[in-house]
Amino acid sequence: MQYRSIIRILGLLIVIFSISMVPPAFVAYWYKDGAGVPFILSFVSCVVIGFLIWYPNRQYKAELKVRDGFLIVVLFWIVLGAVGAIPFMLASNPHLSLASAMFEAFSGLTTTGATVLTGIEFLPKAILYYRQQLQWLGGMGIIVLAVAILPMLGVGGMQLYRAETPGPVKDNKMTPRIADTAKHLWYIYLALTLACTLAFFLAGMSWFDAICHAFSTVAIGGFSTYDASIGHFQSPLINGICVLFLLLSAINFPLHFAAVRGKSVSTYFRDPEFKAFLAIQAALIFICFAVLLHTNVYSSTAEALNHASFQAVSISTTAGFATDGFAAWPLFLPILLIFSSFIGGCAGSTGGGLKVVRVLLLFLQGIRELNRLIHPRAVYSIKLGRRPVADRIVEAVWGFFAAYALVFVVIMLLLLLTGLDNITAFTATAACLNNLGPGLGEVAANFGSIPDASKWLLIVAMVFGRLEVFTLLVLFTPAFWKD
Amino acid sequence: MQYRSIIRILGLLIVIFSISMVPPAFVAYWYKDGAGVPFILSFVSCVVIGFLIWYPNRQYKAELKVRDGFLIVVLFWIVLGAVGAIPFMLASNPHLSLASAMFEAFSGLTTTGATVLTGIEFLPKAILYYRQQLQWLGGMGIIVLAVAILPMLGVGGMQLYRAETPGPVKDNKMTPRIADTAKHLWYIYLALTLACTLAFFLAGMSWFDAICHAFSTVAIGGFSTYDASIGHFQSPLINGICVLFLLLSAINFPLHFAAVRGKSVSTYFRDPEFKAFLAIQAALIFICFAVLLHTNVYSSTAEALNHASFQAVSISTTAGFATDGFAAWPLFLPILLIFSSFIGGCAGSTGGGLKVVRVLLLFLQGIRELNRLIHPRAVYSIKLGRRPVADRIVEAVWGFFAAYALVFVVIMLLLLLTGLDNITAFTATAACLNNLGPGLGEVAANFGSIPDASKWLLIVAMVFGRLEVFTLLVLFTPAFWKD
Ligand SMILES: [K+]
Ligand SMILES: [K+]
Repeated sequence: MQYRSIIRILGLLIVIFSISMVPPAFVAYWYKDGAGVPFILSFVSCVVIGFLIWYPNRQYKAELKVRDGFLIVVLFWIVLGAVGAIPFMLASNPHLSLASAMFEAFSGLTTTGATVLTGIEFLPKAILYYRQQLQWLGGMGIIVLAVAILPMLGVGGMQLYRAETPGPVKDNKMTPRIADTAKHLWYIYLALTLACTLAFFLAGMSWFDAICHAFSTVAIGGFSTYDASIGHFQSPLINGICVLFLLLSAINFPLHFAAVRGKSVSTYFRDPEFKAFLAIQAALIFICFAVLLHTNVYSSTAEALNHASFQAVSISTTAGFATDGFAAWPLFLPILLIFSSFIGGCAGSTGGGLKVVRVLLLFLQGIRELNRLIHPRAVYSIKLGRRPVADRIVEAVWGFFAAYALVFVVIMLLLLLTGLDNITAFTATAACLNNLGPGLGEVAANFGSIPDASKWLLIVAMVFGRLEVFTLLVLFTPAFWKD
Repeated sequence: MQYRSIIRILGLLIVIFSISMVPPAFVAYWYKDGAGVPFILSFVSCVVIGFLIWYPNRQYKAELKVRDGFLIVVLFWIVLGAVGAIPFMLASNPHLSLASAMFEAFSGLTTTGATVLTGIEFLPKAILYYRQQLQWLGGMGIIVLAVAILPMLGVGGMQLYRAETPGPVKDNKMTPRIADTAKHLWYIYLALTLACTLAFFLAGMSWFDAICHAFSTVAIGGFSTYDASIGHFQSPLINGICVLFLLLSAINFPLHFAAVRGKSVSTYFRDPEFKAFLAIQAALIFICFAVLLHTNVYSSTAEALNHASFQAVSISTTAGFATDGFAAWPLFLPILLIFSSFIGGCAGSTGGGLKVVRVLLLFLQGIRELNRLIHPRAVYSIKLGRRPVADRIVEAVWGFFAAYALVFVVIMLLLLLTGLDNITAFTATAACLNNLGPGLGEVAANFGSIPDASKWLLIVAMVFGRLEVFTLLVLFTPAFWKD
């Protein structure tokens, strides 16, 4: 392991991350909200900490191996989450404890969107902006992670998305390839953000709200500048815009890139994951709409459709925005939506959960087993569209599923140990592991009231979810640290 | 499909099953409890119904194909469950509705052990005996199903246990082989039942209670002749005997057979599933014991150990007996035990759940994926003991896992639709799909208070669980009914 090279990079990373403290400082200056000083202090802290980490290791520039990749990816998120928490502790409003500040920062960076704060609209604008920006930056990181880095590391069957090279990636090409991929996908990310900002503004938001909500929409983050979330605006048009951009952001970004480059919308419809994603969304919206109509929760059909489509898309893509407390919806709708967040967005998007393509592969494997029972002598291969999927990849997806289930159960049991009730523990684990945000029970609105021990556990859940479980799990094996 | 041959067999089956109404009639006569008539009527009904089904089809004796096997296995359980419900409807105490009677009969035959009855000790002895006998007969069926039939059908990776023939089984050898396997395993089942009866009697039960509880212990059924279940006896010795026989009954029966034939206890310790099973049991007992001690739920260490070992084994082997309401135990213990029932007993035993060997394979696959991440170029195969497991079997286990999860989610959502609350719906689904028995929430003690619609759904869950999901699921595919 190239420890000192890794430490050098982390130092640089913190210095670069310090720049993210500058825009909130400007926001504080602009709105005269008095929250500028903590961001200037955070900026200076980051530069100093980063420099102190980088300086003794500045000579170590060894080319990193694939195995270093696991460690560096995990440390990236942990280090950024930790320094990202500094402003929440330095500010006077909110003045958070270590556990709460870390929870808020990790929830932002992992685009989980669970919050410990209430009375959000009364916080300084600089803090509000900073939270949304954390999600937006997290989203940028996630796309590169999902599209370029995890496939190289071979995590969770994502070799599926590794460009044509079937063998292990040659070490010396790693950095430039990641940079190239990142550049192309960030253009799309930026374009979506700009379009979303403009649409929100034209639909009646202030520029500040438009930028802030565009950040958390495109990142599928779910943070808002109001306690009532998007529901604050009471606008079906804004809800519709949010749904549209959530759907766009939950699509595989390389697929966007292929469609843009080919100037062809039909590119989307040749993608099996995209088709499955649309079918799932349509089914969820339909079920919510039908149940809400049938139980007369809303006074008009239009209102039922508005809330049904918003909440179905918001929860199933793992955004976690709210218009109206879906936790209070009748019958099985709250649990259905929480379950749907296990599917989540498409792979290579900013969405959380298991990812649509993996669930699709699990489903196809189930179908294959049924067919094998009926025709034991026939040979069935699993295909995505017309492309057969190697058994190796299906196995990796199964391993991912098993690890996900194991991590889920362990974290949920530990949460019960910290004193949460059954439904809170279950949904809080789902909300954080799927990077969704809101749960049910005690955490339906926010995570402020749970014990610190629960918060730390949920931070671990967020990181497990965001790093697709295996990236973090592999660090716990003795074999990883050998030779 | 050999429909008329299948119908002929079902007719015969019902006639044979009518014999099971005779012992309860004798019990009624012996105890003069006045419940003899319903059993005589049930006996006559079964003979008449069976004859009417058999007679028009008596000429159809075509040799059955593997594919007929799925249909016949499903119909076996449905038909026996249905005619098994007759006495509960004909009796005056209890005089159950159709849904409740079916629930009780299916719960008995599938050895689930969930009950709709309260005030059990005040029921006629004949009814009490009949319920226990249902479980014992169900257990006999399950062993043959799990050891001889499902492996032939290729369900859920149980080809693992198919005797040395690697290819599909030749059709014309099916019946004698099943009969031969059944004979050997039933000797073991009978021996366990006799030993358990004797042990219970010597520990202070009446002969009636000893026989009844031996039936439901060896079948891992969980029915009792008292509302307080085994807790009625307030005897650590009886608890210990019950734990011992539950552990013995949750072991793979062919392994028992091999150990008996080889006269060697070391046979057990060469079996990886057995070792995993023991490790799981030891871990669960330890965790329960430690938490109960730490939280001072019981006044003495001996009492804590007694209840911890009893409830851990009773729930994790999916028996579902109770000494003391574990639902009221502190912290995560209730959910931990409910989760442990997903693992269940060993394959080829009377236990429910996913089965230890499958969970072991899932775990080994998870480890393999971790190793592959660390050494991408190495080749890893999954081994049980020293024997490598074919990828084909691991895939079947994954398919099983996916189907189990899908059935779980669908049934749970439908239960919420029938009006159950979240924790009741979740644990009721787990309790019935895992053939466990008791749940938490509204169904912690019994299932009498839930709506009829919920009962029907849970009957479906029991059958799905007992038939290892795929046997029933395959009937819902159009391909099954073609050609
Ligand atoms: K989110
Ligand atoms: K049971």
